Amino acid sequence: MKLNCDMGEAFGAWAMGMDEQIMPYVDQANIACGFHASDPLTMSKTVALAKQYNVTIGAHPAYPDLVGFGRRNMDIAPSELKALIQYQVGALQGICQAQKTKVSYVKPHGALYNTMMTDFTVLETVIQAVSEIDPSLILMVMAVPEKDQVTALASKYGVTLWFEAFSDRLYTDEGRLTPRKQANAVHQSFERIEQQVEELSLKGGLTTASGQHLSVHADTICVHGDGLHAVEAVKRIRTLVDGLG
Amino acid sequence: MKLNCDMGEAFGAWAMGMDEQIMPYVDQANIACGFHASDPLTMSKTVALAKQYNVTIGAHPAYPDLVGFGRRNMDIAPSELKALIQYQVGALQGICQAQKTKVSYVKPHGALYNTMMTDFTVLETVIQAVSEIDPSLILMVMAVPEKDQVTALASKYGVTLWFEAFSDRLYTDEGRLTPRKQANAVHQSFERIEQQVEELSLKGGLTTASGQHLSVHADTICVHGDGLHAVEAVKRIRTLVDGLG
Amino acid sequence: MKLNCDMGEAFGAWAMGMDEQIMPYVDQANIACGFHASDPLTMSKTVALAKQYNVTIGAHPAYPDLVGFGRRNMDIAPSELKALIQYQVGALQGICQAQKTKVSYVKPHGALYNTMMTDFTVLETVIQAVSEIDPSLILMVMAVPEKDQVTALASKYGVTLWFEAFSDRLYTDEGRLTPRKQANAVHQSFERIEQQVEELSLKGGLTTASGQHLSVHADTICVHGDGLHAVEAVKRIRTLVDGLG
Amino acid sequence: MKLNCDMGEAFGAWAMGMDEQIMPYVDQANIACGFHASDPLTMSKTVALAKQYNVTIGAHPAYPDLVGFGRRNMDIAPSELKALIQYQVGALQGICQAQKTKVSYVKPHGALYNTMMTDFTVLETVIQAVSEIDPSLILMVMAVPEKDQVTALASKYGVTLWFEAFSDRLYTDEGRLTPRKQANAVHQSFERIEQQVEELSLKGGLTTASGQHLSVHADTICVHGDGLHAVEAVKRIRTLVDGLG
Repeated sequence: MKLNCDMGEAFGAWAMGMDEQIMPYVDQANIACGFHASDPLTMSKTVALAKQYNVTIGAHPAYPDLVGFGRRNMDIAPSELKALIQYQVGALQGICQAQKTKVSYVKPHGALYNTMMTDFTVLETVIQAVSEIDPSLILMVMAVPEKDQVTALASKYGVTLWFEAFSDRLYTDEGRLTPRKQANAVHQSFERIEQQVEELSLKGGLTTASGQHLSVHADTICVHGDGLHAVEAVKRIRTLVDGLG
Repeated sequence: MKLNCDMGEAFGAWAMGMDEQIMPYVDQANIACGFHASDPLTMSKTVALAKQYNVTIGAHPAYPDLVGFGRRNMDIAPSELKALIQYQVGALQGICQAQKTKVSYVKPHGALYNTMMTDFTVLETVIQAVSEIDPSLILMVMAVPEKDQVTALASKYGVTLWFEAFSDRLYTDEGRLTPRKQANAVHQSFERIEQQVEELSLKGGLTTASGQHLSVHADTICVHGDGLHAVEAVKRIRTLVDGLG
Repeated sequence: MKLNCDMGEAFGAWAMGMDEQIMPYVDQANIACGFHASDPLTMSKTVALAKQYNVTIGAHPAYPDLVGFGRRNMDIAPSELKALIQYQVGALQGICQAQKTKVSYVKPHGALYNTMMTDFTVLETVIQAVSEIDPSLILMVMAVPEKDQVTALASKYGVTLWFEAFSDRLYTDEGRLTPRKQANAVHQSFERIEQQVEELSLKGGLTTASGQHLSVHADTICVHGDGLHAVEAVKRIRTLVDGLG
Repeated sequence: MKLNCDMGEAFGAWAMGMDEQIMPYVDQANIACGFHASDPLTMSKTVALAKQYNVTIGAHPAYPDLVGFGRRNMDIAPSELKALIQYQVGALQGICQAQKTKVSYVKPHGALYNTMMTDFTVLETVIQAVSEIDPSLILMVMAVPEKDQVTALASKYGVTLWFEAFSDRLYTDEGRLTPRKQANAVHQSFERIEQQVEELSLKGGLTTASGQHLSVHADTICVHGDGLHAVEAVKRIRTLVDGLG
């Protein structure tokens, strides 16, 4: 089981996240590409940091919505969606190439991520966009119960998937995230987080809001680099996962 | 002698240039990368058009100044300048990769171009930026009398240069462009333009504002894709250059 | 019956529309405010042009989507929507104040306009935004059959409405615009346009796609400042409306 | 002696400054207008906060350079500079109007501020821009030894000035700020800051880098809302100034 984290979310003079403290504990860095966060210099520093800790680099493309942090849905036509993914992945590749490293995978961000996991025509456009650049790029998607359907779609374009699950989010019985508006949407205790990580790692699933076991296959767990106890939470998950491994 | 032209300068709903009419007549397309003009979809269409006519693709990176079309000087620190060049070149590479073609060269745009040709510390940063991504990328710079100095600087980083001259601009004795504010800065007649192209092609130089011959070595001539008689001018230059070749 | 037209839609180096030819023939100029089109200098020039022809000035606020020309729907929270309308209206007021003129009305643009005419909770937020700045600002909305409901909503916040109809668009029986994808969505002949203007002016309605008469009350007709025959169409509508008056 | 502070410098999801802790202790809030920092919703919240503490509201316009936080010089033509100041001041006025309050003054930000205090032709453009919107708007400028010259320039356009001095910056003998690159450019101890505030308040000047007394007339002192000890520093300066008053 790998750990991935969103990184490089600063923008110009504005800081965000604790990349320097978190980077040593994760396996995969989802690096923002300038459309919802980051800028060329921040990307360059984040790539250097990832390289320093041998962390696998992923592009984290988003809708063009800086002021909304890519969290608002936008009606983007398929041809434009493909182009803006290829632009962002390429931009990070340019930065990586300059530092003799490379982009290994793509994980869409925010509203784009949510939309593609509920509307598989959008997912197909994302898969095409990635496949066209380089079919050896892996696409990171949400671990959902419809795993076979999603895998078949990716296979059609020769794209390999990594499925990710969330350590600190409550799931519905349909295998989606409980909306953040709900009081219990985010696990607050380390124990609850660790329980979910352990279940995902050992039992191939997790316990949903209704108390049921939901089978989901996860290759990687998403941890968070901001928030009060982020660093401690990541260290504990790292220790737990290493112990289970 | 090759012909190059700035291309892909539309932005969103706004058109610019006559790329479709001009593309068949040039050898090299300098494609805007989203910082002074263009957007991912426009870049994608422009790459497809260049590919259709077998035109060599170059990245045309600029300062981050969309409303000013990259024409205003900005004090950008060297580390940031390198990163924003690598970002833009990479972005176009991503778009090209998706269409099974590639970026062959880099030509900085507008104020960045002018600044690097007058302040060689900026030029050195640009050369480093290009070399770090891929030393086989060629850098297109202005054909200036200080050719040896510029070539030596590029050699230090293993970068090959293409020197470009302008077909329709009046030069000073120092080998710089007469500022556009001056009445005679831009040649108005086809004859004067053709004379300059012929001189550049056959005599390795051109006639300056003062009537002197200035020796400059040009590998490529920059033609313009907008303006009233742009298409006719480009066709005439193409015919002339082909005849001389 | 008044005529209104979207104006000031250039952006930086990019031109759009034929403001100078159209301005003499309209009564109301909907001036873009920098979020979907325009920039401070363009706004300043457009205000000067409107003032020169005694054209009433309206703010044309939009979603923050320059590359998409404000035509893509975005999920914007009500508090943010209010703030971004007030920002844009204020910005145009600042430009107007500097030229001793003023903003008289507000007409939302593109996706925001369409959304507010189908989702009246969004319309209510827009009305509140306008009312908070200055209840003497008039809000221009689409002339729909639900006129009474819309008027009641505006009255609640002390806002006066101007209803606008479109001269060259085919309407559904529900009083909405036939989607542009449909072949006959836009009237192509001057005669058909003139017929619709005449019907709106004299009979308080128009003929829908199904051939039925639909009653809609219009205070102003929207004409277009771009397109091949835009100037001639506007002149003809002007002549027709003046003759009817 | 008044205290002023830059406020509303968050942008979208990114926080900056401690506006809530600082606002109760200052007299004047310089609110960013979206070109170097802030966005409509942040501006709206900042205006509400200023209103709550009866703090006088000023517009803090800047060059259009979000990623550079308005700190990089840009060659902007006078007509465009005027328009972008009027746009930004107007935008904040719109937000203020919606909350039944108003913009009382204008203080340019960052590179624009520095440029206008060294190049008085730029200062004259800024003065004109402000005067055109509303000559009762006050312009806040740096307290420099050339006070009479600056005052004469403003008088020409009917504009009143407020002169501001910095509490924590070391001055040159010419009355300019020692560049931040120099080790001692920013006073580190509360005592040194308090000494400067006291000298400005009681002796009409301050002690420069060379140890000389420099006469400068200050109406207001700029304090900082970010940095480790910002809140404590502001509270101490507030107490000191109130005691002197």
